Amino acid sequence: MSSAAPSYRPHPISGFPEWLPQQRIVEQRLMDEIRATFERYGYVSLATPAVEELDVLLAKGETDKEIYTIQRLHGDSQGEARLGLRYDLTVPFARYVALHQNALVFPFKRYQIQPVWRGERPQEGRFREFYQCDIDVVDQNEVSLYLDAELLGIVHAVLDRMPLGGFRLRINNRKILHGFLAGLGLAATADAIRVLDKLDKIGPEKVAASLTGELGLSADAAGQCLRLVRIATPGDAFAEQVAALGVSHPVLDEGVAELRFVMNALRAYPHRSAVADLSIARGFDYYTGTIFEGVLTAYPAFGSICAGGRYENLVGTFSNKRLPGVGASIGLTRILSKLFQEGLVPLDTASLTDMLVVFPSEAMFETAVATAERLRLRGFNAELYPHPAKLGTQLKYANRKQVPFVWFPPFEPGGPHEVKDMKAGIQQAADPETWTRP
Amino acid sequence: MSSAAPSYRPHPISGFPEWLPQQRIVEQRLMDEIRATFERYGYVSLATPAVEELDVLLAKGETDKEIYTIQRLHGDSQGEARLGLRYDLTVPFARYVALHQNALVFPFKRYQIQPVWRGERPQEGRFREFYQCDIDVVDQNEVSLYLDAELLGIVHAVLDRMPLGGFRLRINNRKILHGFLAGLGLAATADAIRVLDKLDKIGPEKVAASLTGELGLSADAAGQCLRLVRIATPGDAFAEQVAALGVSHPVLDEGVAELRFVMNALRAYPHRSAVADLSIARGFDYYTGTIFEGVLTAYPAFGSICAGGRYENLVGTFSNKRLPGVGASIGLTRILSKLFQEGLVPLDTASLTDMLVVFPSEAMFETAVATAERLRLRGFNAELYPHPAKLGTQLKYANRKQVPFVWFPPFEPGGPHEVKDMKAGIQQAADPETWTRP
Repeated sequence: MSSAAPSYRPHPISGFPEWLPQQRIVEQRLMDEIRATFERYGYVSLATPAVEELDVLLAKGETDKEIYTIQRLHGDSQGEARLGLRYDLTVPFARYVALHQNALVFPFKRYQIQPVWRGERPQEGRFREFYQCDIDVVDQNEVSLYLDAELLGIVHAVLDRMPLGGFRLRINNRKILHGFLAGLGLAATADAIRVLDKLDKIGPEKVAASLTGELGLSADAAGQCLRLVRIATPGDAFAEQVAALGVSHPVLDEGVAELRFVMNALRAYPHRSAVADLSIARGFDYYTGTIFEGVLTAYPAFGSICAGGRYENLVGTFSNKRLPGVGASIGLTRILSKLFQEGLVPLDTASLTDMLVVFPSEAMFETAVATAERLRLRGFNAELYPHPAKLGTQLKYANRKQVPFVWFPPFEPGGPHEVKDMKAGIQQAADPETWTRP
Repeated sequence: MSSAAPSYRPHPISGFPEWLPQQRIVEQRLMDEIRATFERYGYVSLATPAVEELDVLLAKGETDKEIYTIQRLHGDSQGEARLGLRYDLTVPFARYVALHQNALVFPFKRYQIQPVWRGERPQEGRFREFYQCDIDVVDQNEVSLYLDAELLGIVHAVLDRMPLGGFRLRINNRKILHGFLAGLGLAATADAIRVLDKLDKIGPEKVAASLTGELGLSADAAGQCLRLVRIATPGDAFAEQVAALGVSHPVLDEGVAELRFVMNALRAYPHRSAVADLSIARGFDYYTGTIFEGVLTAYPAFGSICAGGRYENLVGTFSNKRLPGVGASIGLTRILSKLFQEGLVPLDTASLTDMLVVFPSEAMFETAVATAERLRLRGFNAELYPHPAKLGTQLKYANRKQVPFVWFPPFEPGGPHEVKDMKAGIQQAADPETWTRP
């Protein structure tokens, strides 16, 4: 049979990244490390379907994330539930906890490493399908503030193992922003926070203009706001600087006390990268207390590589019980794209194969398979070349796949085994029962 | 804050299974084992996006699998590519190989463990979202028949580790069916194969009636067909039985020779479960040679738990090059659902935590964290109770999560460490620097 012209010539779909084998090995290694770290701290794994009912995805009101809906190609949409792809892992987790609460042990500590989908315009570091690595705790009635510190410590531990060239965890508390604005006499605090959130993008002049314009703050009050969001300190030194601004409100006091508690508890964990940074607002509206995000110090314009916070009422959207939570999310695909783009990880491994086992001839097939099977039983990843090609072809394949060893089973009955160290170029006799990697 | 009435009460979505933590631990363990086995044989990992262009999903003509399309909820569909969720992993893999062929080393051996989606009516063992574990090889011009045996050996090795209570791999070759029917003088061999594929469901009388009716075979010829598809033998004994039917055609000879080769090569691998079974047809139309499926011997009506075959022309649908392939797919979600339903796996582990570290008091927080961090560095999964609750509460939590050990850090500065073996009920002094699991 000869090949006809292809019926369809494929091309990459913008925003849906896929990796080459060398990159996939890096992705898997990072996923394995993240999973191991999450499990080290006692979190259990969870996976939820890609699909949720639209009512779940929209339960907190319209989201600013673009949702993908799904329909059967030949479906009659009548009578089918309206379904969509999840846009984050927190909402499905909250729905899961509400649905299965009677089967779970609280405090329920879980992690989840899965893709999410957003129909947004793709740009640098922003994809339509991307993996998030989430870790959350939900508890009955109250979720311990110590957990905010634990989660930040875990995120720090995970990121610290990656070759990111430095990162910073910026931590804040929503109550500080709300309380401060309320203390200034503002009622529409959420609108003002949305304006303050744009500081990095539009600069202080435009922020001040918005605050005094649409939102009706005095020039003095707007100046206070800008001073507040410029506060960024390690530890709890931020609290004194807030106090010096002379604004007072019970919600502000609560927020300062909570952030202080978290910053102090965090000292028990790896925390070098952590700063209390009062400019952090986070767009998502389910956060109610602690909020944080992580950025790369070498690429400040790249956007956040992780984020999280407390959500007192999210699970309650789906349940009569009070089940507050706190969580963190690491943007693995975004991080990987940067690592690849900047060449921060070596892509020198095209396979995890320990040795290629040469296929000498049809007659020696069973001996070659038996040799490979023996090496596999001993824990090696042993790949058999799939047919008795010329030796040069088989060695070239091993070279191109960067396989470190080539194993030569007997070329005739009763012959010797030999192994070649491809890097050192040395070939010598070896026994499949006892050989170990030099 | 008190909880308001929930805005939406969630419920499970039919066909989209999600597991409890105890079940998820089993799923992850099986996935890890499958992955390790695939890597043992030198296959590299690949992941493709959930989404493909509809043109890719439909490139081989209308599929019998119900495809889900995706649309942005607020999207203007004008000018957007028509996208759908993959319904298997073979078509995306073929598209991947065609797209990235210049960056790949051939023979290209890859595995892929990801979910797929089909908008079919959910029923026992049939889901709308389910994980497949695929392993395939694509090569230039020709893909070695030895690989059919290797893949069957790998599938056997994977399934053999699962508590399935016996399974059978039924192996056939499409060319035998096509060639036999052509040898009987039939032109529309594909239609006849579709009829023969229904043998298990509708029985021999109805199959014979269809063959002599719509397809115009003589009663004699229909009888020959039924005799052919009843042939099932271990090893290559099937060949003699086919020859005894006295039908001759070059394609039939080719199919018999190929199946004979595969059955003989398979003897070098674990193969106890393998039979040449000429009734296997497999619905998918991209298979051209070897086809196979696996069934549970204890649950013959449950449907196939794995399947695969050779596809000479699938990658060529997307490329000018000749890139034939052969692959196998294990239906992990279907298998899991059966294991859970029949109680074939113990669900006695609710976490992978080695020890719960007690949180004695606010004052001892830093000591407790330091103890847990020390144990983590030593390789233990150590979970810190999240706040200084009553000791009884903390122990009850450890019990409910089936955590095997509870670690008591000092309750006052300079105090001793102790550890309690929850099963044995023994509590004794321990050093976090040296303690090992008894």
